[in-house]
Amino acid sequence: MATDNNRFQAIISHCKEYGFIFPSSEIYDGLGAVYDYGQWGSELKKNIKDHWWKSMVQMHENIVGIDAAIFMHPTTWKASGHVDNFSDPMIDNKDSNKRYRVDHLIEAKADELEKEGQQEQSEILLKEMDTLLAANDFDGLKTLIENNKINCSVSNTCNWTDVRQFNLMFSTEFGAVSSEEEENKIYLRPETAQGIFVNFLNVQKTGRMKIPFGIAQIGKAFRNEIVARQFIFRMREFEQMEMQFFIRPGTQKQWYEHWKAERMKWHLGLGIPAEKYRFHDHVKLAHYADAACDIEYDFPIGFKEVEGIHSRTDFDLKNHQEYSKKKLQYFDNDIDPATGKPFGNYIPYVVETSIGVDRTVMMILSEAYEEQDLSTDEKKDSRVVLKFPARFAPIKLAILPLVKKDGLPEIARTIMEDCMGHFRCFYEEKDTIGKRYRRMDAIGTPFCVTVDHQSKEDNTVTIRYRDTMLQERIPIDKIREIVLKAI
Amino acid sequence: MATDNNRFQAIISHCKEYGFIFPSSEIYDGLGAVYDYGQWGSELKKNIKDHWWKSMVQMHENIVGIDAAIFMHPTTWKASGHVDNFSDPMIDNKDSNKRYRVDHLIEAKADELEKEGQQEQSEILLKEMDTLLAANDFDGLKTLIENNKINCSVSNTCNWTDVRQFNLMFSTEFGAVSSEEEENKIYLRPETAQGIFVNFLNVQKTGRMKIPFGIAQIGKAFRNEIVARQFIFRMREFEQMEMQFFIRPGTQKQWYEHWKAERMKWHLGLGIPAEKYRFHDHVKLAHYADAACDIEYDFPIGFKEVEGIHSRTDFDLKNHQEYSKKKLQYFDNDIDPATGKPFGNYIPYVVETSIGVDRTVMMILSEAYEEQDLSTDEKKDSRVVLKFPARFAPIKLAILPLVKKDGLPEIARTIMEDCMGHFRCFYEEKDTIGKRYRRMDAIGTPFCVTVDHQSKEDNTVTIRYRDTMLQERIPIDKIREIVLKAI
Repeated sequence: MATDNNRFQAIISHCKEYGFIFPSSEIYDGLGAVYDYGQWGSELKKNIKDHWWKSMVQMHENIVGIDAAIFMHPTTWKASGHVDNFSDPMIDNKDSNKRYRVDHLIEAKADELEKEGQQEQSEILLKEMDTLLAANDFDGLKTLIENNKINCSVSNTCNWTDVRQFNLMFSTEFGAVSSEEEENKIYLRPETAQGIFVNFLNVQKTGRMKIPFGIAQIGKAFRNEIVARQFIFRMREFEQMEMQFFIRPGTQKQWYEHWKAERMKWHLGLGIPAEKYRFHDHVKLAHYADAACDIEYDFPIGFKEVEGIHSRTDFDLKNHQEYSKKKLQYFDNDIDPATGKPFGNYIPYVVETSIGVDRTVMMILSEAYEEQDLSTDEKKDSRVVLKFPARFAPIKLAILPLVKKDGLPEIARTIMEDCMGHFRCFYEEKDTIGKRYRRMDAIGTPFCVTVDHQSKEDNTVTIRYRDTMLQERIPIDKIREIVLKAI
Repeated sequence: MATDNNRFQAIISHCKEYGFIFPSSEIYDGLGAVYDYGQWGSELKKNIKDHWWKSMVQMHENIVGIDAAIFMHPTTWKASGHVDNFSDPMIDNKDSNKRYRVDHLIEAKADELEKEGQQEQSEILLKEMDTLLAANDFDGLKTLIENNKINCSVSNTCNWTDVRQFNLMFSTEFGAVSSEEEENKIYLRPETAQGIFVNFLNVQKTGRMKIPFGIAQIGKAFRNEIVARQFIFRMREFEQMEMQFFIRPGTQKQWYEHWKAERMKWHLGLGIPAEKYRFHDHVKLAHYADAACDIEYDFPIGFKEVEGIHSRTDFDLKNHQEYSKKKLQYFDNDIDPATGKPFGNYIPYVVETSIGVDRTVMMILSEAYEEQDLSTDEKKDSRVVLKFPARFAPIKLAILPLVKKDGLPEIARTIMEDCMGHFRCFYEEKDTIGKRYRRMDAIGTPFCVTVDHQSKEDNTVTIRYRDTMLQERIPIDKIREIVLKAI
């Protein structure tokens, strides 16, 4: 049995061994903090995305979706603040060429000092760092590193470059203009939200949307994380599911609470117990927010953010209005009870819900993964089972003829024909039934049906339930209905 | 009525006006050859992708999907030939800074000569160009341009840089190594296919796949097209739906024909008549192919490629094996009738089907778009209707209370509650019923139901069919069934 400590590693290995998640370009020894979804991981991820889209878009008549491009006009990122602010002070060691975030480097030294019993020194170091960071004093930070003889962990030298700001956005050259001018430089979006903001007016007008309303989107985003790690938890290429809810200024507190409650309800609706979740309120708010919190899930590596809910005020729309010189306003003809007149023109406020697709995959996998000891007095036995909710399972039904002859495969094929148009099925005739069941457990298939010789007599099969491992005899013509009901 | 010539422009305008497709970052005056899908376009696109995924993956037990990252190890693109070959000779005008593809520039001049009656000169020019291009003689090409006094259309000067190769891949700097070394340069994938090839062995082994089998993928790809135009037809950021089918060497001809037939059957299954399609066989084959063709659809701008079917031989896997030093082979234990022994180890051959998501959206839109003259003797009238197959329609059912009072909205809401969990519904109570019908026609909603005073008496509504505009009275409890049957 995996302990809490190695459970995370066990899940990562399982994901690779059973076709859920592979390191990207693995034959070339991988690419840091990038992963590919394999045959079952891609289905799991798609099922999760479809579920979110259905619950957020289809089930809300005042929310519509969009699908904006990854490439956006570069001014977008000036208006959003990402060009100026989406960066960390970094320093490079000249001998190893290794780059560090300055705060991480200094914090590591402070930890070391503390372990050596130099509590006071450690605290002074951190305090000095905070002061210098707040003042953007890069020369001071470099001197602090040198004076404290902080070495690179690779070269073990104290031979450092100057401290520089390092923007986390990936950039590329765009288009067919030959000169190397700045305006050819575009960015891969570091968040999907801005695709919604720049399209706000187009959607509102062409969709005749009335405030309050939301715009939702699922899509890739990219961040050149320096410390990218923890499997699919912090990747350089990742996917977000975001919804921006446009509201009347002054109502943001109420809508923030509304979406906090709604989103937590969604999480609990996944069948995950309440004690695995907690809210984490942001004390230090981002420059665009007047309230913000995370929904954290208790991963095998501890409580970590899965989703953020942010009251973004009118920060983004106001800045896009300023940079684009286009009026990004809404005329509200509802009557203001205070004045007896329409609320009139305003820049809407925004409450955002933003959940990571990959983190949700990781959450569903963590929740589903179970190592079970099935040993009896006679023999040792165990299984790994992924107890996915049926709707998320990559395969819903495995159809297994007991033997490869006597007409059993033919009966199995007719079941396949009947079901495969409705949900994903899997046909397998190799190995013992026991082995086949275990393989289906390992990829989380909720139902297996076995076709045996009795099936030829009475048109029944044995259905075997993943979680309980119980088996029962059911008529062939009931299979489809049972699976459809479960999903 | 739009003529064939301006039908294309009419569709583009309609797409923008009704929330299907917007120019990207439009408030910043757009980004060349990049588009955003709006509230109805994103649903249309999702429905098309889901349909392809279902028909290619769910309905084929020997095809599985994956979802590989856009970022891949840079050696991938050396092995695939893209670093060396995915480029065009370009030339820049020094006065305008405008960049041209050399062949386009010369061809334009040849056209001009022909129009001026200088047929022979035109032919000589083209012939010289072909010779120089085949020889990669860039100095010769520059001299040809200068000798023929070919001017930039912007600056109108003949002041050119040297001819250079211009790679169509977008590149970016990756990771946390400080030096500006070449190995930090990675590319945005210019095709999704390589994500399948580098994962071939992982999927085959963990999925226990037996040849012949396929791996499918839907995802974004990026090409820095110099001449990017024709709306969503040639974009710099686009989406592909690809399937690579791995087969035994020597069987490629048969599988190529199989997938040509299968894919054409898929297209005809969209309800598009056969005369709107044709095959275009490639005469000049790409370096990796031993047979290739396009499926072309008759767009308003003429027959153009929607999908390609390519017999790619073992070109990709063989090169990845060479560059990665990992054996990308399959052991085939089927018996070779010629030798009586297993076929044994080999690098599989590949037949690929590759269809553009955006081009498919464009095709479905082109096929659906209809301007109808509904004038009678009494008054002029017309409508624009999008006759989507019901399964692709962004909204399946509009629910319209005749008036905003008398309890009609409440009845409409109960219908909404009953249906919205099953398919996308739309509720609207503003404007006359006629106007509301027309708006639904314009976004392709197949069914509208109107709740009126009679509904309160006998629990019936009027259902109105988009294509025929016929209306009939049906019981409220039949609505869901009717729509579900159609999709």
